[in-house]
Amino acid sequence: MKLLLIGYGNVGKAFRRLLHEKRDSYPILQNVEIAGILTRQGLMVGDKENFSPDKQITVLEAIDFINPDVIVDMSAPNYKDGEPSVSAYIKALSRKIHVITVNKAPLALKFREIFEVAERTGAKIGFQGTVMSGTPSINLFRIQPVAEVSRIRGILNGTTNYILTRIYEGLSFNEALKEAKEKGYAEEDPTLDLNGFDAAAKLTILSNFIMNRSIRLGEFKFKGITEISNEEIRRAKSEGKKIKLIAYADNYIIQVSPQIIGPQDPLYYIDGVENALEIQNEIQRIIIRGPGAGPANAAYGALTDLVLLLEGCL
Amino acid sequence: MKLLLIGYGNVGKAFRRLLHEKRDSYPILQNVEIAGILTRQGLMVGDKENFSPDKQITVLEAIDFINPDVIVDMSAPNYKDGEPSVSAYIKALSRKIHVITVNKAPLALKFREIFEVAERTGAKIGFQGTVMSGTPSINLFRIQPVAEVSRIRGILNGTTNYILTRIYEGLSFNEALKEAKEKGYAEEDPTLDLNGFDAAAKLTILSNFIMNRSIRLGEFKFKGITEISNEEIRRAKSEGKKIKLIAYADNYIIQVSPQIIGPQDPLYYIDGVENALEIQNEIQRIIIRGPGAGPANAAYGALTDLVLLLEGCL
Repeated sequence: MKLLLIGYGNVGKAFRRLLHEKRDSYPILQNVEIAGILTRQGLMVGDKENFSPDKQITVLEAIDFINPDVIVDMSAPNYKDGEPSVSAYIKALSRKIHVITVNKAPLALKFREIFEVAERTGAKIGFQGTVMSGTPSINLFRIQPVAEVSRIRGILNGTTNYILTRIYEGLSFNEALKEAKEKGYAEEDPTLDLNGFDAAAKLTILSNFIMNRSIRLGEFKFKGITEISNEEIRRAKSEGKKIKLIAYADNYIIQVSPQIIGPQDPLYYIDGVENALEIQNEIQRIIIRGPGAGPANAAYGALTDLVLLLEGCL
Repeated sequence: MKLLLIGYGNVGKAFRRLLHEKRDSYPILQNVEIAGILTRQGLMVGDKENFSPDKQITVLEAIDFINPDVIVDMSAPNYKDGEPSVSAYIKALSRKIHVITVNKAPLALKFREIFEVAERTGAKIGFQGTVMSGTPSINLFRIQPVAEVSRIRGILNGTTNYILTRIYEGLSFNEALKEAKEKGYAEEDPTLDLNGFDAAAKLTILSNFIMNRSIRLGEFKFKGITEISNEEIRRAKSEGKKIKLIAYADNYIIQVSPQIIGPQDPLYYIDGVENALEIQNEIQRIIIRGPGAGPANAAYGALTDLVLLLEGCL
């Protein structure tokens, strides 16, 4: 099975390392081979740790050139139009090349369009890594079949949750943001995390998959944490409460917004960069929590998709 | 696909109802048919809601007579020797008849023996319902492949957790037990819950499956909640702590025992009949919580196994 990796940053490198590490001990991975790695600098043919491009070609040309069985997209999201990933997925899926992605933008923007192509050809899409990285979210739903989901609710962005936690513990917003950057929990430009955009992209993907919606990022309201004052957080604390950025969808509402919640709410206890997802279906309510980001975690999310694909379970 | 149901108590009835309810709307279930239901009173051929036996035969004879594709064991556990279920599984699996079970005893007593037969013939075993009913535990591991698990930890028995919670809230042990019985959270004879046996059976199954152990129920120490005094629970409370019955396994230790835990421990917040499971693997720690029992939940656990079987993903 030939893979074409798209993107070779921290996640791409972690994925390559993990695949090499596991290939010898897990027979199911034995015939998996990285046939090429594509970055904005071009395509490197074959599987080497240190990237150096062999050809200056686009992702669409790289699909022709490598003719992989699977493309694994670990490139940074482009929320303007999802390109070049959207076109790459459409091209790949229409040729029955499977797609595994940790890149949220294409599915948050064009979920139905992409899945329609996959359904037509029978190609599969693994996208566990787009929501909560390696902590089962998308794939959790695969093992909870034939039960209608009436509500999902979660803390889906680690950066904002870390900042809210540290303000609760006494820092100012600016101190908390600075610390988050130092620890690698916030990007140099943290806008898309702070304004709720990242959580909204994840909620879009979850709602479409778990609740069978046909929604696009931008079609519902989302709010981040930038308008919350330190005083509001302190006041909530003095009343035994916390402010959390909650992603929420039921059959009527879909939104991302800061909520004041108390200790009777399981999400109250999700602090720091941890993420959590609550799924209420007609049978039961379950809650999963775990890391929501990190190169090794996202890489593991993609690797679990690869194993499920090989098992015929995507 | 022909099913032979074994046991037709609350879980069996809930399973039949759920299957009928879902069969029309989910194509994957359309060809599933209940070909017979076996209880201690005999075999009823076909699929009727009200049980009346057509034949006085054993489960082994019923397998010959019905020749099912799957047996679904929802009978009560017999912890003496796991019979007649153990023999039924061996016979079924050796003929490549799949097994789905919510009955803990056979797998807690003869895990390796049963799996060896399945591996030889390629028959599958679904056993999500043996641990935490419909809340993903066994099946959660199926979507977290190729990562070594170093530790599992959980609250796996709802009856004892309910009683501990109510004592913490002010009741005496006897009041809490009485209330648990009234609410259907404790059986008339609650011994196997109270003495840690039920949690130990679940931990045995989890350790064997998730940590690749070869352990039998009885080979490790377990302790229940009967020796905990109300005073100990109150004292822990006055120190901001709770006593919980914790099932624990790492590469050296396997045990069920009451533990004093504080608010920094995610299991501290699991109250009442809720269950939770923490899995630490080489990549990450995840925690899932949800109902641990209940006829509809156990039935759903079995139904999810059936769907995964039909998808080729058991």
